[in-house]
Amino acid sequence: FFSSAPIRATLFPGDGIGPEIAESVKQIFKAADVPIEWEEHYVGTEIDPRTQSFLTWESLESVRKNQVGLKGPMATPIGKGHRSLNLTLRKELNLYANVRPCYSLPGYKTRYDNVNLITIRENTEGEYSGLEHQVVRGVVESLKIITRQASLRVAEYAFHYAKAHGRERVSAIHKANIMQKTDGLFLKCCREVAEKYPEIKYEEVVIDNCCMMLVKNPALFDVLVMPNLYGDIISDLCAGLVGGLGLTPSCNIGEGGIALAEAVHGSAPDIAGKNLANPTALLLSGVSMLRHLNLHDKADQIQNAILNTIAEGKYRTADLGGKAKTTEFTKAIIDHL
Amino acid sequence: FFSSAPIRATLFPGDGIGPEIAESVKQIFKAADVPIEWEEHYVGTEIDPRTQSFLTWESLESVRKNQVGLKGPMATPIGKGHRSLNLTLRKELNLYANVRPCYSLPGYKTRYDNVNLITIRENTEGEYSGLEHQVVRGVVESLKIITRQASLRVAEYAFHYAKAHGRERVSAIHKANIMQKTDGLFLKCCREVAEKYPEIKYEEVVIDNCCMMLVKNPALFDVLVMPNLYGDIISDLCAGLVGGLGLTPSCNIGEGGIALAEAVHGSAPDIAGKNLANPTALLLSGVSMLRHLNLHDKADQIQNAILNTIAEGKYRTADLGGKAKTTEFTKAIIDHL
Ligand SMILES: CC(C)[C@H](C(=O)O)[C@@H](O)C(=O)O
Ligand SMILES: CC(C)[C@H](C(=O)O)[C@@H](O)C(=O)O
Repeated sequence: FFSSAPIRATLFPGDGIGPEIAESVKQIFKAADVPIEWEEHYVGTEIDPRTQSFLTWESLESVRKNQVGLKGPMATPIGKGHRSLNLTLRKELNLYANVRPCYSLPGYKTRYDNVNLITIRENTEGEYSGLEHQVVRGVVESLKIITRQASLRVAEYAFHYAKAHGRERVSAIHKANIMQKTDGLFLKCCREVAEKYPEIKYEEVVIDNCCMMLVKNPALFDVLVMPNLYGDIISDLCAGLVGGLGLTPSCNIGEGGIALAEAVHGSAPDIAGKNLANPTALLLSGVSMLRHLNLHDKADQIQNAILNTIAEGKYRTADLGGKAKTTEFTKAIIDHL
Repeated sequence: FFSSAPIRATLFPGDGIGPEIAESVKQIFKAADVPIEWEEHYVGTEIDPRTQSFLTWESLESVRKNQVGLKGPMATPIGKGHRSLNLTLRKELNLYANVRPCYSLPGYKTRYDNVNLITIRENTEGEYSGLEHQVVRGVVESLKIITRQASLRVAEYAFHYAKAHGRERVSAIHKANIMQKTDGLFLKCCREVAEKYPEIKYEEVVIDNCCMMLVKNPALFDVLVMPNLYGDIISDLCAGLVGGLGLTPSCNIGEGGIALAEAVHGSAPDIAGKNLANPTALLLSGVSMLRHLNLHDKADQIQNAILNTIAEGKYRTADLGGKAKTTEFTKAIIDHL
């Protein structure tokens, strides 16, 4: 990597524990000499009419300009008349694919060993259309929308990802035995793309069966691609296999190559400001961002330092059964760099 | 139990391994002196215009008359112009609640101990409305329908069940943060019913979080109630925790007190007729049916014989890692009665 000018990236520290774990990322990235200059943006305190949400227009413009960003947890303020922060980001930035690598952390025991899979979720349509209405009193309906364009786009991303990362198989998750037209179209698009990647195995798995197989033997899966809601469900299930959302990274990919990595856990207001939070999910999301920027050396260096610190077990935060403060855990990772 | 006339119950042996495992049920029930007289019905070989499916009208009439039945696996024949057998049964008999007890089998090791929960699934509407259409080329939509009537009905069943079975808590599973109107109505109905059962704890859990918690710590849950698709997904996930669909019973409850118990695994055509099939799911479904009939002594006796046979481990079918034939396993259960 030869560029000498630093890469500008947007940073949303977010709410609750967000600022503390973002601080941890900044320190570790600095210690590893990552050539990134952060542009920090906070969630606004008033609704910005241009975004219809508490996200400021400037913060979205920052991601659009930089094409890359990292986001901590954001608690959507309570009240009506505005859009959820997460959904606003996905819609406004057209973040069409949510990518979550999910692997067992060496030394951190759960019921599962050797989990190593990637969930790729369509992030813009399906059950998240927002189209709902009451037909008559006591009868409501919601619309699930599946389009050829969005299905091809996410399928293309999944196969491209599988190939680029040396993965063997893509499984399309669906319920086309019941939703023959909507999920059927999703599968049709996946099949079309699969034909262009003869070196990648392709299979189709019904969502209920997929969940059963995941809890029985997650090693059966490699890359999974699916419509929005199934992705929401399965990505959390998979995170649970290896320890939960506090340990798993996430990255959203948008049109034109935008990437917004994010920790998908909550903002944990109960422990905010107490130096107790675990920055692992945000750190590993930062690593995903580095990989997206092709900064693989830095990504490997930081990822190894995180995994080694956790594996060693001397410095673990309370959620992992340890006693380390956020700052101690951060320092331990820096020492492992 | 004092009635001397036997209870007539419909039996659908089903396809593939169905007849063999149904034979096992008949032998064990007979050996236990269960006062049931079976009325056997097979899936037809032609579409019956009155049911629009391969199910005969007579077989549905049999369940309507007897009010109780047991069903083996049915493979829906390939081809167009008819309805799926499972969906036909649910619609025609108005089987509004699918109840699946899910518990760890003593002596049969999985990654989880002490699982003991019940999933109760709304079985008639939601994502299974069958209403789908293409809006324009490349854009399809499906309708999810939630009604106050069906939501109240299944919520009522869940709380009634919890109370009758000495359960402490009902969790309503939803995605109302995204589908505010549909899943919102479902929750509203659950809350209304919850108020009538102050002795039962009530909570609401978002489906993605629920799946993560289930794989991390299933002991957090007791009775779960949810719309159709979430029930489909979560009941299979839960079955996976304790060994899969070959070991877990299921019972469908309909208006007017109809109960159709069923093994929800597949018909396993590859091993059909080879005396290799595991009859446990159908047997335990039969036990659910006995409980529905308030034949608790017989239910306990048979359930204990099944669990003891599996726990002892001498006679296990191939799917459980053993070498016993279906008939040997059946005989072992009879010896344990
Ligand atoms: C908070 C919620 C709207 C969101 C979703 O459903 O997409 C979350 O579960 C996620 O996965 O990012
Ligand atoms: C076979 C299929 C239509 C069915 C369903 O989706 O309901 C099955 O998965 C079940 O749970 O009984």
